[in-house]
Order: sequence, then structure tokens, then C-alpha cells
Amino acid sequence: MGGDGRNPRWSYARAGVDRAKVSEGLKALLREVRYRPPPASGRPIDAPGHYAGMVRIGRETIAMTTDTVGTKVLLAAELHRWEGVGEDAVQVNVNDLAAVGARPAAFVDTILCSRPDPEVFRSIGRGIERGLRASRCALIGGETAVVPDIVNETDLGGTAIGFFPPKRAPVTGERIRWGDVVIGIPSTGFHANGYTLIRRILEENRVDLSRPREGATVSLGEELLRPGRIYVPISEAVAGLPEVHGFAHITGGGVRNLSRLNPRARFVLDGWPSPDGLFQWIQELGGLRAEELFETFNTGIGFAVIARPVRLSALLRRLARAGAADARVVGHVERGGGVELPNLGVRYEGYS
Amino acid sequence: MGGDGRNPRWSYARAGVDRAKVSEGLKALLREVRYRPPPASGRPIDAPGHYAGMVRIGRETIAMTTDTVGTKVLLAAELHRWEGVGEDAVQVNVNDLAAVGARPAAFVDTILCSRPDPEVFRSIGRGIERGLRASRCALIGGETAVVPDIVNETDLGGTAIGFFPPKRAPVTGERIRWGDVVIGIPSTGFHANGYTLIRRILEENRVDLSRPREGATVSLGEELLRPGRIYVPISEAVAGLPEVHGFAHITGGGVRNLSRLNPRARFVLDGWPSPDGLFQWIQELGGLRAEELFETFNTGIGFAVIARPVRLSALLRRLARAGAADARVVGHVERGGGVELPNLGVRYEGYS
Repeated sequence: MGGDGRNPRWSYARAGVDRAKVSEGLKALLREVRYRPPPASGRPIDAPGHYAGMVRIGRETIAMTTDTVGTKVLLAAELHRWEGVGEDAVQVNVNDLAAVGARPAAFVDTILCSRPDPEVFRSIGRGIERGLRASRCALIGGETAVVPDIVNETDLGGTAIGFFPPKRAPVTGERIRWGDVVIGIPSTGFHANGYTLIRRILEENRVDLSRPREGATVSLGEELLRPGRIYVPISEAVAGLPEVHGFAHITGGGVRNLSRLNPRARFVLDGWPSPDGLFQWIQELGGLRAEELFETFNTGIGFAVIARPVRLSALLRRLARAGAADARVVGHVERGGGVELPNLGVRYEGYS
Repeated sequence: MGGDGRNPRWSYARAGVDRAKVSEGLKALLREVRYRPPPASGRPIDAPGHYAGMVRIGRETIAMTTDTVGTKVLLAAELHRWEGVGEDAVQVNVNDLAAVGARPAAFVDTILCSRPDPEVFRSIGRGIERGLRASRCALIGGETAVVPDIVNETDLGGTAIGFFPPKRAPVTGERIRWGDVVIGIPSTGFHANGYTLIRRILEENRVDLSRPREGATVSLGEELLRPGRIYVPISEAVAGLPEVHGFAHITGGGVRNLSRLNPRARFVLDGWPSPDGLFQWIQELGGLRAEELFETFNTGIGFAVIARPVRLSALLRRLARAGAADARVVGHVERGGGVELPNLGVRYEGYS
């Protein structure tokens, strides 16, 4: 059987995803791209390393995100259940818009497949519909490519654009300062990231996905394919408030995502919950070190609001009305940089 | 050796891409997506079947396209030459913006790969840079996913957004009517589509890509990896003119793309050139029927401008100043529907 936590064995790198190498590749690409178009083509807004790109067009600022569901689709294929990952294709993108305080306007999906199975497409469509409803976003196009020589199964992703309604500016994290609080919004399980690692651990332990894990009431398959929570209503409820300084979508990179917001802030997550349920289960099964766990998964908190603690109870009430009665303070900001979980003995110096 | 044109053997469907099945899958998906967001989320503009989706945000109309380079990347991988397909990742998208008369503003790339090779990423970056310069567009983000369990090699694509400068409206083809002329803009070879078929034909005929085909001066590899022409300057030069009624990007679907513009117009392409050079070569090598050739490739004309023939010589001069001194009238519009190449005995009734 799997590791026991004292015998660390699995890591994201061992599962085939070496973040440092990805970062190196990406840097090589970006070094070549230096072109800046004339202002008549729109004015890009610099927000380096952020969740969404932004460009000023006429009198509007448009935010744009692109992302895929990753290898979670392979689990969907194995279990013949595609609706959840359809919703995730929207979710992974609109949550990144939510993280800059942009209101989603339009989405386009991308499906690469080895063959177009109408039943699979119908399920994906149902999921996309759910994602669009939850984020109040329109589908305005897409790309379906049948490329059996490129993909083994199906790749699913998309791109979303959003905007800033009157009197709302991009929420970049720039105004974060010491004394701010970190409010955590619970997730409903894994987001659509880290599944290459999850699947390796499942395979090695010959886990039966048709049965629930200990302590759960639904099958593991259902639990693992549950779509990520959509945090758009959270962001919409508070993005315009002056005391709200930053948002973090806790996805690939885990809690280290907080570092993207402001390099001069140290996020001390002294109220972050210990991993339980699904997160504790995967940690034990894979023998994952805590450092690995927290920089790979959301571990139970999927979105964070960083705010000046003035009118904090009013802010929490507002989040509750937007569907997050479960929001709570999980940390605070100090001078410095990086992210720290003091109770769990984990600290990171930057994002990657 | 290959077919001789009298013995038709290859088709896009036989190569593994059955357009009817793709269309069926896509319809199954779209039937499930019925949600229309409230106006506060932006107002999608209906332009069914068009090159770009459009949404009204505040006082701007934003056009959005998403597309991949398709299996042209497999040829790039085989020949270790990635710059051209990097440029294509921009090209396939900005040309679809050009086809609705939108000015490109921002692009995000998507790279799915089995491993991130910095040398490959650098070349792709150089190509993206070239594409951005040619279309005056900014890179504002992207997604790099290392997913060895999903892709065999590398998939390359992206999403672009554009807008309509003051006094310019979307060019949809709605105003096309009988008597309009079709002006063709020559391509510089294949666009980034149809490569699944091209590769099958190359393989079957054991073609040596390091040597030129008869009549060519560069190697076939170089010719086949040449990036598609960027038609943005063409569109920019004439999109605001009242006599310009439509644009067509002649990509997957070939000349049938004209039918997307207006179902009540019949496009009679009596001046469309006979396939020569690379196009004649692939037709002969693959034994492709003319119907197959013209609905799969651009066959030498990559972009079309449909216009009322008032001040036609002024329009052609304007196109020449925008880099298309080679533009010429290749057909006209009659009442009815579909696309016809009377000199070549080819006719189609619709788009798919």
C-alpha cells in the first residue's frame, strides 16, 4: 500500500511535472517576445506574473485568461463521466478572472480529441452550461480539433475574457500591506490541477474508484471528478470595496499563489486548516511531504481575499450573502516576502 | 508513386478527419449550452457560424477567436523547426479577427507538451514575435501545460481578441448582394490546416523533405513549414469602407468558407486560379479529387474581400499599398447559395 507520511515518496516532479523546467521553457519563449504594439492597437497593462493578462481597449479594460483542465480529463475518460470536467473548463478560466476582480463576459472552449464522440461532447456541453451559469458568462465560440496523431484521448480547455464594471479597478495585490488579513474561502475538493500526481498515486496503490474512501459517502471517482468551486460570486461581491487589496486563486502552485500578488508581503497563514478529508487521504496514500502538498493542491481553501481589517465583520457578512458563509480569516500579512504556514512547519520564499 | 488525378485515392475523411462527424459532435455540445447571461455581463452579438465571436462590453465590441496550428506541429517536430508554427499560432487567430474586420489587440498562447524543451520554446517564441509584429498585437499571457499522458508531441495554439476602432463596424457579410465582386489575396502556401492529410500523403509516398519538389527552389520541408500569410494589414486597409461587404479567410473548409458569410449569396469563382505549384503537386501526389482539394486547402488564394465594384481600381490600389499588389478579382456574387468554380467543374451547396 501507499506511503504513510513518514516515508515520503511521491512528488510532482517524480510524476513527470517539473515546475522548474516548465519555468525555464517559458522564460526561453518570453525572452524572444519583445514586441510592443502601437497604442492604436490597445494598451497592455503590466501586471507581471498575474492571473490574467489585461489590455486597455478604448474606454474599457479587458482581462483575459487561458487554461486547460489538464490531466483530470484522463480520469473523466476512465470513468466515462465528462460533465464535471466540462464545468472545469469554464471554472479554471473564470476563477482566474475573479482573481483580478474582472467580471466574466465571454468564454471560448477548446477541445482536442482523437475522435469526436457525440455522447462525450453532450456531457461536456452540459458541464460548460453549468460553469457559464455559475459565472454569468456567455459562450461565444470555440475550437474543436480532431487530431488523433497529437492527443491520446481528449484535451479540454478554453479562454475567457472579462471586464471591470464602472467604478471598479483591477485588483492586483499592489496595495497589500502588513496588517492585512487573509480570508480563506473553502474549496469543494481538488481544483483541476495536480492530477498527473493524483493519478500516479492512484495507479500505484491500485485504488478502486467505484468505492468511497474511508470517511466519505460518495465514490472516489465522483469525489475526484467533482468540478472546482466557482469563486466568481465571491469576487463580484467585494472586488469594488476599497479595503479589498488582493485575491488569490489557490490552484497549481498551491499557497505559493499568494506570493504572486505582492513580492514585498509575507503571508503568514497561521489559521490555515490542517489538511483533512480528501487532502489528508492523498497525502497519506502518496507519502507526500507537507511542502509538496501545499504547493501542489489547494488543501481545502480554494480562494483567498486579502483585505484591510476595517469593517471585517461587514466584509464577512457580504461574503456570506454571496454564498461563502464558510469564509474565515486564515492568516495575515507581515513585512517581507514568501508564504509561511507556521503551525505546519512549511515556508516558501517565492512563487516558483 | 502517388495518384495521378484519374485514380482518386486520398481524402480528408480517409486521413482520419471526418468533417461531418466533427460537426455532429459540436452540435451535440451546443445543444446543451443555452445560457444567456444578463446584460450586466456584456451582450453577445449573434453572428452564427462566423470567424469570430463578438461581445459588446461597455462602449466597445470585442471580437474573440481561438484556434490551433493542428498537425502542422508534427512536421515541425520531425524537422526540428518550430519558428514557423510559432508564427502560425498567432496567424490562425489574427486572420480570423481580420475576417470580421476587427483590429487585433491581444493574444495568449497555449502550449501542451510532453516535456518542455527550452530550445523548442525559444523557436516558438521567435515565431510568435514575428506573428505579433505582422499583426500589431500584444502577447498578454498564455498557458504552458506539461501533459505527457495527453499529448504525444506538442500542441500549439492560442486565442486572440480584437476590437473595432471608431467608425468601423463588424464586417459580417450580411450586406453582400448580387453583383458584388470577390477579390482574392494570394497565399504563400498552405495555411495551418489540412496537415493530417498532407502528412498521410507524404508518408505513403516516402517523400524526402530535405529536397525541393520539381519546380521549387527550397526544400519541401521549408516550403511545407512556411507560416501562413498574415492578412491583418489587408483587412485594416479596407474594413472601414462602405463598399466592403465581407471578408473570408480561406482555411479549413477551403473555398466553402465563402458560404459562411451569407447564405443567400452564390459565389461564382470564375477567375479563381487553377491550382499550381505546391497545390498541384499535392493534388497529383495524393490523387485528390478537385472537390476534395478546394474544400481542404486554400489552393493559392488565402483571403477574399467581397465588395461592391464601385471605385474598384481605388480599392485595388489601397490593397496594393497594404502589401497586396497581387490582389485581383477572382469571382462575383449571384443570387442563390453555395460556391461554384465553373471553369473547374466544382460546386458546393453550403459550408459543411
